Amino acid sequence: MPEWLGLVAAFLTTASFVPQVVKVVRTRQTTGLSVGMYSMFSTGVALWVVYGITIGSRPVILANAFTLALCLPILCLLVRR
Amino acid sequence: MPEWLGLVAAFLTTASFVPQVVKVVRTRQTTGLSVGMYSMFSTGVALWVVYGITIGSRPVILANAFTLALCLPILCLLVRR
Repeated sequence: MPEWLGLVAAFLTTASFVPQVVKVVRTRQTTGLSVGMYSMFSTGVALWVVYGITIGSRPVILANAFTLALCLPILCLLVRR
Repeated sequence: MPEWLGLVAAFLTTASFVPQVVKVVRTRQTTGLSVGMYSMFSTGVALWVVYGITIGSRPVILANAFTLALCLPILCLLVRR
């Protein structure tokens, strides 16, 4: 049960970045998005992956690895503009 | 060590929403932000809190409780516009 709960939570927080990345890539519209947020968030998510490995929590590892893969394109577009 | 690592990760992913919420509240500019993202993200973060309680991970609980408190004002502004 706890692992399932974590996986549902993981799916939602990770998948939530899909509509955001689609919107940003399609419109190239990044007004309103904060560079500060995406810089700190990406660094933090990378550290969550490492934390997940140390505590052996698959939901923490998987969720954050996918989230990182979705956040980085947004961060790149924000930094470039 | 693992708990410290989790707390640093937690601090970064949570605090990252501060510049975003400040930007949105100050400018009332939500162009570029995805309603879909904030709806799914807030639901997922709430479930992470519950998961954190079940596995007894303080970093998971704390990080997500604060993140939720920062995301909800953004979601409210997005839904209202």
